[in-house]
Amino acid sequence: MSLIVQKYGGSSMASIERIQHVARRVARTQAAGHKVVVVVSAMAGETDRLLSLSGKISSKPRDREIDVLLATGEQVSIALLALALGEIGVEARSLLGHQVKIVTDNVHGSARIHTIDASPVHECLDRGEVVVVAGFQGVDHEGNITTLGRGGSDLSAVAMAAAVKADACEIYSDVDGIYTTDPNMYAKATKIERISCEEMLELASLGAKVLQARSVEFALKYGVAICCKSTFDDGEGSWVLPDGPGGSMASLEGAVVTGIAADRQAARISVTRIPDRAGAAAELFEPLGREAINVDVIVQTAPQDGHCDLSFTVPKASAKQAQQLLEGLRSELGFAEVRVDDCVAKVSIVGAGMRSQSGVALRCFRALGQAGVNLQLISTSEIKISVVVDERFAEVAVRVLHDAFELDKPQGERKGLHD
Amino acid sequence: MSLIVQKYGGSSMASIERIQHVARRVARTQAAGHKVVVVVSAMAGETDRLLSLSGKISSKPRDREIDVLLATGEQVSIALLALALGEIGVEARSLLGHQVKIVTDNVHGSARIHTIDASPVHECLDRGEVVVVAGFQGVDHEGNITTLGRGGSDLSAVAMAAAVKADACEIYSDVDGIYTTDPNMYAKATKIERISCEEMLELASLGAKVLQARSVEFALKYGVAICCKSTFDDGEGSWVLPDGPGGSMASLEGAVVTGIAADRQAARISVTRIPDRAGAAAELFEPLGREAINVDVIVQTAPQDGHCDLSFTVPKASAKQAQQLLEGLRSELGFAEVRVDDCVAKVSIVGAGMRSQSGVALRCFRALGQAGVNLQLISTSEIKISVVVDERFAEVAVRVLHDAFELDKPQGERKGLHD
Repeated sequence: MSLIVQKYGGSSMASIERIQHVARRVARTQAAGHKVVVVVSAMAGETDRLLSLSGKISSKPRDREIDVLLATGEQVSIALLALALGEIGVEARSLLGHQVKIVTDNVHGSARIHTIDASPVHECLDRGEVVVVAGFQGVDHEGNITTLGRGGSDLSAVAMAAAVKADACEIYSDVDGIYTTDPNMYAKATKIERISCEEMLELASLGAKVLQARSVEFALKYGVAICCKSTFDDGEGSWVLPDGPGGSMASLEGAVVTGIAADRQAARISVTRIPDRAGAAAELFEPLGREAINVDVIVQTAPQDGHCDLSFTVPKASAKQAQQLLEGLRSELGFAEVRVDDCVAKVSIVGAGMRSQSGVALRCFRALGQAGVNLQLISTSEIKISVVVDERFAEVAVRVLHDAFELDKPQGERKGLHD
Repeated sequence: MSLIVQKYGGSSMASIERIQHVARRVARTQAAGHKVVVVVSAMAGETDRLLSLSGKISSKPRDREIDVLLATGEQVSIALLALALGEIGVEARSLLGHQVKIVTDNVHGSARIHTIDASPVHECLDRGEVVVVAGFQGVDHEGNITTLGRGGSDLSAVAMAAAVKADACEIYSDVDGIYTTDPNMYAKATKIERISCEEMLELASLGAKVLQARSVEFALKYGVAICCKSTFDDGEGSWVLPDGPGGSMASLEGAVVTGIAADRQAARISVTRIPDRAGAAAELFEPLGREAINVDVIVQTAPQDGHCDLSFTVPKASAKQAQQLLEGLRSELGFAEVRVDDCVAKVSIVGAGMRSQSGVALRCFRALGQAGVNLQLISTSEIKISVVVDERFAEVAVRVLHDAFELDKPQGERKGLHD
């Protein structure tokens, strides 16, 4: 007998018929001999409906009372699902954030979970009940309702799985798993069987529709095994696994690259001929950090004549603002100019196997070179290689890399680097 | 400075515009120097919307999960009203049933309030905040959400007023008070300035749209002064007052009759020639009680030849069932027959002043007699005289009684019985 946490998102709860469908899935899991905790989101569209009500009154995006309002969405869902389970003979009990209880900090609209009291859940499970928990919500230390931000129900589910020491946390949505790359970009994309949490974090964009990034961080920290599945079919889904000691990912050692992400919403900024002195880079990035502009793929050239060039990417939407902020520093820092190219894309290959295998970069650059893709910037980490290319070559880059690392084959059947 | 509890019903909260209107009323009350606790219902139509969702899943009318579902209606209301108050510069804080906390028994769908912890409310009031409390809901001793039944927000408000020792409990609706009789029946009906809780209970039908009967019982028990007002004008409203020692109603001694109610949904049942022995009446009413049929205006004739007749009224909708139940007892009890007349009406005059004044019945019967209204049954209590008449004469009876007791005049200006 396993203890399984299942999370169903808004599209899975979009109508009475779908809620009844979810109830049957839950019943089947219980009938297979498992204990089940279900975490649900608000019915699709409900959160937006509530926000449009509050929007007519107040322009505040975050407020104690907005959280009181939004928390009703999940409350409706848990009641309806518990009723639907009761109708098909499954004893079920709904629990709200304050009943569980999921204690958070008091940052309304994006609260962080501090603790979960698993005992009310275990009491219900021990009575043979299915427990239906409201996602997205908690209470602060004074008992005020808080919410965890968009996609927060994933986090609720993973945190609940950690608290009750579940054997798995199944995240259901209308997508049947995580793919090696965006299938809209390359039709040969295949479903990933298993991926580590660290890889998943690097490939957040591939799982964006499936799994909220904060919940993956949480799973990594607390050792929760996540399985992303479709509510609407019985496929195997994709496992997102924490690296444990001994390695639950051990069997995947052969796989070098797990997935490829392309970010076309990037712009490249180059600052040229910066007088080479200690602290110059910090002074450049300080105003960008203050404005919360996300800087990525930073490359600095080796100094020549006491000067160096610095290039990096920012989100395309922030490029203009970043340029203005940097221009403001020119007289102080004495650099030559700030150049912006917002027709670039960032393509990243990610794989935990890179840690122990050399030659990944070589195969990557060779494949791109043979396809005539010019690399503007390169940045590498232990498990990721990112290249910045002309936006027009983004799709080509994804395809040749997908082929080069045989991502269309099942994970176990791919050739090693030196085979 | 007074402490005032204000309750706004669903029609007062029916739209964003109306919620903003309510916020301005609340702000005005606070600006006049009062501490304010607001109790609100769900937005009009919301409870029905939620019930239609659950109705598609389950036919259960009462269930733990139905209460979880319905409680969201008031939660939406308190959040929106607190936001609307914030927008016009009034510090406000919403509190749910479990936060207040309103502890009830565990009878889902019609829970009874056990205790209210007034301290969270006082803490907010002492900080200068308006407190916005969700009506209709509570928690049982195990922390499960309960609801108080239709109209339960009135009860929440009165109970809250008792708990925080409020100076008054103002109940706002789209009706501007309680009338001496139904204005649709007699256009001379006037708004009652003050009425005692006991009178109000006897005249429940006159206040049915304005004030839930259970909340009047509660006000009587805990000495809460209620004022029924319109959300949409600035009229004085009607006071519903508990009889305290010394009598908050003392100034109304001159008024003999306070209001007149007509119930056209009654049927008269007569059981004839019942052998006169102890316990016969109990045996007749036993099956009606078991089926929860409400029996009223019971009149038994003095026995003759060892037999008596017994007549009473039941709700018209229960007449057929009552007749069948009684027929089943005929051989056992040996009565002659069961007659049903469902074309009757019950007209009641109510007034606390009757207790100390004789001659009320005389004036009542004389007025009806002069108008040619034949009395089928008469029943009196300390503060009420009910007569059962042919349904066609109900309106005439109401009008002549209204005139006879000068209910069209202000309460202080009516002649006494012996003037």
